[in-house]
Amino acid sequence: MSIRIITVSREFGSGGRSIAEIVAKSFGFEFYDKALIAKAAERTGFAESFIKEHGEQRSPNNFFSLPFTSSTFNGMSTEDYLWSMQRSIILELADESPCVIVGRCSDYILRNRKDAFHVFVHAKPEDRADRIVNQYGVHTTNPMKTLAEEDKKRRKNYRYYTDREWGAADNYNVSIDSSLFGIEGTADMIITMAKELGVSSADK
Amino acid sequence: MSIRIITVSREFGSGGRSIAEIVAKSFGFEFYDKALIAKAAERTGFAESFIKEHGEQRSPNNFFSLPFTSSTFNGMSTEDYLWSMQRSIILELADESPCVIVGRCSDYILRNRKDAFHVFVHAKPEDRADRIVNQYGVHTTNPMKTLAEEDKKRRKNYRYYTDREWGAADNYNVSIDSSLFGIEGTADMIITMAKELGVSSADK
Repeated sequence: MSIRIITVSREFGSGGRSIAEIVAKSFGFEFYDKALIAKAAERTGFAESFIKEHGEQRSPNNFFSLPFTSSTFNGMSTEDYLWSMQRSIILELADESPCVIVGRCSDYILRNRKDAFHVFVHAKPEDRADRIVNQYGVHTTNPMKTLAEEDKKRRKNYRYYTDREWGAADNYNVSIDSSLFGIEGTADMIITMAKELGVSSADK
Repeated sequence: MSIRIITVSREFGSGGRSIAEIVAKSFGFEFYDKALIAKAAERTGFAESFIKEHGEQRSPNNFFSLPFTSSTFNGMSTEDYLWSMQRSIILELADESPCVIVGRCSDYILRNRKDAFHVFVHAKPEDRADRIVNQYGVHTTNPMKTLAEEDKKRRKNYRYYTDREWGAADNYNVSIDSSLFGIEGTADMIITMAKELGVSSADK
């Protein structure tokens, strides 16, 4: 079966989002990142900024703080409700048309689809630190600490919802170091590999 | 700087060794797996079979059993002495000529070399189970359990000597799923990527 879904999970600051976008353009696939957030916002009635903040991470002291600070939806916490909504949306989008989906545990949600190719993008800490400050415009006096905190949040969120380890090679078909190949080079390698596997009819 | 060393770490039963051999042949690089073991055996005076057994794993109840069961070398346990020997040999071999090195924490030992490309090969548990029984000829009534035990040993050994997590994508430049690409296909992808980075003059 040929590939019609590519999930791109990524370390913060690895350039994974830009890489995913190049891959999507190259194959003429839909690209879901902010668009996915907007869809989720539309469906849940949450503000986009709220979803962006909570959609990939649980509150730091979740276990203790949730009962007092979060609303519940059919007995679910805000975060769990949002996860369940995002999950449904990802499953629907994957059915609709060939696409590249960035993050949001999409590798796990779509793990059983034979037509999905799961990629993880990582990079050297010093390159990630440079990218978040000079390209993403993150204001921080200690970029390495910011990265460590972000990694911790993603790891926690991923483990909670998937019972797997974030960034473990086994979760993905390919994991690749964007520090070594560069943004364009990494995208090229992912495109080469997807082509090798065969890409669905949306292939331009 | 172009690539003159490729390390291939692999899950047991992923076919990583065969893949590494194809890559080595393709570039005309030296191939170190059993050859490395033989070199280590020669230098340490240990039997090859002993090194094969202990070179990638520490004893199961190492902490308690070692003081009573292992000999020591200059105050080092057998395992630590063997590690130190293997480390020196890997560093020497890497200096000598372009090569592909399989396992033995070579990714960690050579992590700071700019001319090294670090690969991890993994595969689906069911494919690994099938391979160890039908190709490697491992005698086991429960191949999944055998795999889990082997993974645990490698993880423990790797963590002990490197303070890193075995199989974490971050340790390698590329991690690749041989179940998806097949043995030849995975080797082809590694060759393509190495060529993209530039391969040293031993390139045929």
